[in-house]
Amino acid sequence: MKKIDLEESREFNPLGMKSIVLHDSEHFKILNFNIKGGHIFPVHSHDRDGQLSILVSDGECAFLADEGATIPAKIGDMLVADIREPHGVRADTDMRIVVTIAPPI
Amino acid sequence: MKKIDLEESREFNPLGMKSIVLHDSEHFKILNFNIKGGHIFPVHSHDRDGQLSILVSDGECAFLADEGATIPAKIGDMLVADIREPHGVRADTDMRIVVTIAPPI
Repeated sequence: MKKIDLEESREFNPLGMKSIVLHDSEHFKILNFNIKGGHIFPVHSHDRDGQLSILVSDGECAFLADEGATIPAKIGDMLVADIREPHGVRADTDMRIVVTIAPPI
Repeated sequence: MKKIDLEESREFNPLGMKSIVLHDSEHFKILNFNIKGGHIFPVHSHDRDGQLSILVSDGECAFLADEGATIPAKIGDMLVADIREPHGVRADTDMRIVVTIAPPI
């Protein structure tokens, strides 16, 4: 059992994206990504089973999907997708997401 | 792929706790619990493999563990525990958590 304080990983990378692994086990992997406004976490996917959730914990953004699809998102919004489905994030302001991947990549 | 808006499950139960299943698949289950201040999500555990994360998305609380242990928590704090480890939450204000369980119960 462990407590994780998201405030402790509140660092931004002026070049775009900062990623911090919060937890990694055989059951799931949890990461925090901090993305500078104006930057993009490019659409990508992995050819394996599993799902991921992306919870917006700070800022404004859009979830990105296949063929240029964009889904506006704000604090408290969550995207759930198969790992095989193309997914990405466009940061409209400095923003933070918590990503959970099960099973872990 | 689906977007979930946590604002849409912002209901409280005056009797204590409101739980809403946000997602359930073979990979993980994601729930939102809204707990009235002064109420307790009692310490419990399940005798099976797996882990869970509890992310505080609103309010102030303490994570509860075995033998009366309490861990103060605020927005953005997360507890990660084995499903077998006793865990609970004490709501000090009206508060909300997002719980991810992998594999799902």
